[in-house]
Amino acid sequence: MSLLVVGSMAFDSIKSPFGEVEKVVGGSATYFSLAASYLAQVRLVSVVGKDFPQEIIGMLSSRSIDTRGLKIADGETFRWKGYYEYDLNTAHTVATELNVFRDFAPVLPEEYRTSPYLFLGNIDPRLQMDILAQVQRPKLVALDTMNYWIENSPGPLREAIGKSDIVIFNESEIREISGEYNLVRAARKVMGWGPARVVIKRGEYGVLHLSDGTMFAAPAYPLETIFDPTGAGDSFAGGFMGYLASRDGSELSEMDYRLATMYGSAIASFAVEAFSTDRLQNLSPADIAERVDAFRALTEFQV
Amino acid sequence: MSLLVVGSMAFDSIKSPFGEVEKVVGGSATYFSLAASYLAQVRLVSVVGKDFPQEIIGMLSSRSIDTRGLKIADGETFRWKGYYEYDLNTAHTVATELNVFRDFAPVLPEEYRTSPYLFLGNIDPRLQMDILAQVQRPKLVALDTMNYWIENSPGPLREAIGKSDIVIFNESEIREISGEYNLVRAARKVMGWGPARVVIKRGEYGVLHLSDGTMFAAPAYPLETIFDPTGAGDSFAGGFMGYLASRDGSELSEMDYRLATMYGSAIASFAVEAFSTDRLQNLSPADIAERVDAFRALTEFQV
Repeated sequence: MSLLVVGSMAFDSIKSPFGEVEKVVGGSATYFSLAASYLAQVRLVSVVGKDFPQEIIGMLSSRSIDTRGLKIADGETFRWKGYYEYDLNTAHTVATELNVFRDFAPVLPEEYRTSPYLFLGNIDPRLQMDILAQVQRPKLVALDTMNYWIENSPGPLREAIGKSDIVIFNESEIREISGEYNLVRAARKVMGWGPARVVIKRGEYGVLHLSDGTMFAAPAYPLETIFDPTGAGDSFAGGFMGYLASRDGSELSEMDYRLATMYGSAIASFAVEAFSTDRLQNLSPADIAERVDAFRALTEFQV
Repeated sequence: MSLLVVGSMAFDSIKSPFGEVEKVVGGSATYFSLAASYLAQVRLVSVVGKDFPQEIIGMLSSRSIDTRGLKIADGETFRWKGYYEYDLNTAHTVATELNVFRDFAPVLPEEYRTSPYLFLGNIDPRLQMDILAQVQRPKLVALDTMNYWIENSPGPLREAIGKSDIVIFNESEIREISGEYNLVRAARKVMGWGPARVVIKRGEYGVLHLSDGTMFAAPAYPLETIFDPTGAGDSFAGGFMGYLASRDGSELSEMDYRLATMYGSAIASFAVEAFSTDRLQNLSPADIAERVDAFRALTEFQV
């Protein structure tokens, strides 16, 4: 079923201990869409400048991503420049140029408004609320955010969280927004605001997925070569939401959420094996199924 | 079957965000022995001073721990003083007083020399070699160490590692000794020195357990209340080795090692729920089995 994503598309310049790239394609919505495209019909809402390569938009379309919601605005595409040291969990930002993203005011194409699955990528929570106002209540709404919005727009963010079913944080984000260091308490506090589920991303340590009464811990795949962690969290979210959308509207069970977490983890583990979205452009369903099975082998034990 | 442990016994003074205790019982061999005592017949080799309370030794004996190898020397017991901040993964040492531990020269009681399972706790690698020279080759030797020995006794440590079947490190230790930041590469390098298995402790993120051709990732249990992480690694090692010793000498399979990892993780998760060894003194087999089952519920998913 259709999965609507709203988020950024960008040019990234990235340095890691394993190399350096200039002005490659990035952005949360780009990673999310590609990751989800292996599992669901993705509808993309974002904005790029006139400098954005037409062949990238063509590549997204070739993966059956609906780009009718992608606005090409006068001006330059959002740019991010950053680097990683050996601790790949921490991105160091050198420069951010919002460019056309500064005036992003998403208007959904009519056909998008009944999308049953919605992912509100990490953008201004006022825009996240705007999107929620433009859609019929989806079956499932997931929201991502970042420290900047937690600090600068706490009110609108709390409102948007209150209207979401699932919130995706990294460890520092959920600690900051909840004021609780302990992750179990932090998740319970956030669930008290409305969402039924909280997903906590822990980088190379994997994911913790909590609901009222359940906890699921998934490791990250221990890779020998991680080139570029940029987009790992968005790829995770894409695989996660893509899997849920692929369940075709059936009642979602705890096991569905767990398997969604593993699909997200599997696709994220591919994303970091190359710079930019390179590795996400030509996976096969068999690649993904094999990685999910490798996760099973990585975690299973018999009592 | 019998499990021989050599390591420190100590008085600890600990401050954490959750409280403060003065001169409580600690030491790697103490935590290890108590943890292992739920699964195997433990033989303890250590040294304490005349100031060490007889009732603690009585408590160990009441848990069927063989203390004939515990020397009571003239002088004071080893003392450690440290604190934790909210990041409970990092212990900050304020003071260490070796006292009677400075002259520790373990001599094994005759009956101990044929112990089939041996855990060389974190002590001077020259003493670890001494112990290895005093025993008939056990079925299984596991070794623990710390950054101090990696930096100050690299030669003897490499020799002791070369004679061990399993080495237990935390992340910073294996990175330092191998010169590899990536944990998969680091583990492969250490296995090249002799050991068939490497266990990497990652604190609140759990454990990574590698052999040639297998990887097993176990989360830590997401607890709401962690009072004192002191001894968590030693309690893990005790549960891990205790489970292997409980297999009664049968050929150990990958699944045995995985279940051993879960027993270690389960017992460690109890250890941190109270200061000192308090929680480890009165567990029941049912408590432990229940926690292992909670780990199954925490990690299972069906493809």
